[in-house]
Amino acid sequence: METVSENACFGGVQGVYTHAAKTTQCDMTFAVFLPEEAKDGPVPVLWYLSGLTCTHENAMTKAGAQAWAADHGIALIFPDTSPRGDDVANDEAYDLGQGAGFYVNATEAPWAPHFQMYDYITKELSELVFDKFPLDEARQGITGHSMGGHGALTIAMREKGRFKSVSAFSPICNPTVSDWGRKQLSAYLGSVETKWVAHDASLLMLKEGFDGPILVDTGTKDQFMDLLMPEAFAAAVSSKRQQATIRYQPGYDHSYFFVASFMEEHVAFHAEALYA
Amino acid sequence: METVSENACFGGVQGVYTHAAKTTQCDMTFAVFLPEEAKDGPVPVLWYLSGLTCTHENAMTKAGAQAWAADHGIALIFPDTSPRGDDVANDEAYDLGQGAGFYVNATEAPWAPHFQMYDYITKELSELVFDKFPLDEARQGITGHSMGGHGALTIAMREKGRFKSVSAFSPICNPTVSDWGRKQLSAYLGSVETKWVAHDASLLMLKEGFDGPILVDTGTKDQFMDLLMPEAFAAAVSSKRQQATIRYQPGYDHSYFFVASFMEEHVAFHAEALYA
Repeated sequence: METVSENACFGGVQGVYTHAAKTTQCDMTFAVFLPEEAKDGPVPVLWYLSGLTCTHENAMTKAGAQAWAADHGIALIFPDTSPRGDDVANDEAYDLGQGAGFYVNATEAPWAPHFQMYDYITKELSELVFDKFPLDEARQGITGHSMGGHGALTIAMREKGRFKSVSAFSPICNPTVSDWGRKQLSAYLGSVETKWVAHDASLLMLKEGFDGPILVDTGTKDQFMDLLMPEAFAAAVSSKRQQATIRYQPGYDHSYFFVASFMEEHVAFHAEALYA
Repeated sequence: METVSENACFGGVQGVYTHAAKTTQCDMTFAVFLPEEAKDGPVPVLWYLSGLTCTHENAMTKAGAQAWAADHGIALIFPDTSPRGDDVANDEAYDLGQGAGFYVNATEAPWAPHFQMYDYITKELSELVFDKFPLDEARQGITGHSMGGHGALTIAMREKGRFKSVSAFSPICNPTVSDWGRKQLSAYLGSVETKWVAHDASLLMLKEGFDGPILVDTGTKDQFMDLLMPEAFAAAVSSKRQQATIRYQPGYDHSYFFVASFMEEHVAFHAEALYA
C-alpha cells in the first residue's frame, strides 16, 4: 500500500492510498478519513460506495461527510467504483465498464478478469484497511449514492451480521427490472436472470431482510427516479416487515448537493447504531 | 443572465448562472447559494473569492459552505477568478492569466481589455446579483482562499463601509514582496510599484485598516507559507491596532480539506457581524 496524499481535515486526516489488488488484478485507489479519536485506538467505520462515473474522490471532496464523521469520531472509507487501467476492459457508455462496476463479481468475458468488485470491497479492501488503520471491525456501517446505494444495500444484506446499519442516497433499488441494472447484470453475470437476484436490493429484502436499521433518501425531483425505483424497495420493506425509514426529500435531485444536504443525518443515523 | 443549473441544497437552492459581462468583455459564470429564508425576503450575503486555477465551482462543491450558510440564513456568492475564453489573453503558467485574475483592473497589454476583475466583482457582478436575487445589500461579508483571500482582504479595505466583516483562508497577504504577487502585479499593473500598493493587504492595513472584525486562518503545514506571508499581515494589524484574529491551525495545509474544516467557524464569524 502506498500513500498518495494525506491532508489534515476536521482534526483528523483525509488520506488517499493505492495498492496492487489481487481480486481486480490492477492498482486500486481508495480514500480513508480518520477522525482525531483514531490516534487513541480503533474507531467505528462508515463505508461510502459511490455511483456511476465516480472514483474514490467524488464523495471525499463533495459530500461534506468528514465534518459529521469527525463530530461522531467515525472513520470513512471511500473505495473506487471499478477496476481501472489501459489493460482493463471498458465500454464507451458511462454506465458499463470502468466507473461502473456495480459491486458484483463478473463471470462473463471480457469483464471477469478484473471486475470482481464485490470481493474487492467485502474481502480484499476490508482486510487491508482493518490491517493498516485503527478501525473497529465490530462497528461497521455502510452507505452509498445511486449505484453505490445499490452496493450498500445489497452488501449489507448479503454480508450477514457484519454491518450494524445501512443507508443510501438515491439508490438503484431494483436493478433486475431497471435499465440501470439489466444491461450491467447481463454483461457482468450473463443472461441467466436467476443469478442477478443476489444483487437486487428489493429482491434481497424480500428474501433476506436486514438485521438493523435502514435509512433511504431519494429526492422528489430526482431525474433518474424511474431508474432507481425506490417504490420497489419500499414495497419489499413493507412485505418483509423490515425496520426502515424511506424518505422522499422535497425538491432534491440526484446531485451531490442532495447527498451533502442529508449527510449530517445519515452519519448521525449510523453513529446511533455504531455506538449503541 | 442565463441559468446554467439550479439544485436543491440544504433547504435552499444552489444555482449557477452566466452573463455577458461588460467589464471583462466576455461571458462570466458565477454561482449563488440562496438559503430557504430567501423565499421570504432579502438575506445577508457572504462573498467567497477563490484562488489560483479555480473557477466558481471549486468552493461551491468542495468547501461545504452551504451547510453553515443554510444554518445562518445567509446567501453565498462564488464568482469566477478571471475572464475566460479563446479570445481572452492567457499564459501557460498556472498563476497568470485565465484562472489568476488577482482581483485587479489590469492596465497593461495584453491583459487590460478583459482582466478587470476588481470592477467586475465590486461593481458589475454586485449590481447584477443584488438586482436578480433577494439579497440584502446592507449586510455583506467577504471571504476567500489564497489569491481569493487576498481579494477578500483588499476589497474589504478598499470598499469602505460596504462589508461588515472579512475573513480569509490562507490568504496571500503581502503580494508586493511575494513571488505570488510581484509577477502578476507587474504583468497586470506595470512596473511602477506604487500602483501595486492598493492591492496588498498588509500595506492597505497599515494605511486604511478595516472598520469591523477580521478573521484569518492559515495552516501551520501550508506548503505555500513563504508565499502567503501571514506574518506581514499580522505585523500590519499590530501596528494599526486593528481588531483581528490571526490563527495558525496546527497540521493543516493549503487544500480545500483545510478550508472545509474551518468553514463553519468562518460562516459563524460573518453571521455574528451580519446579524449584529
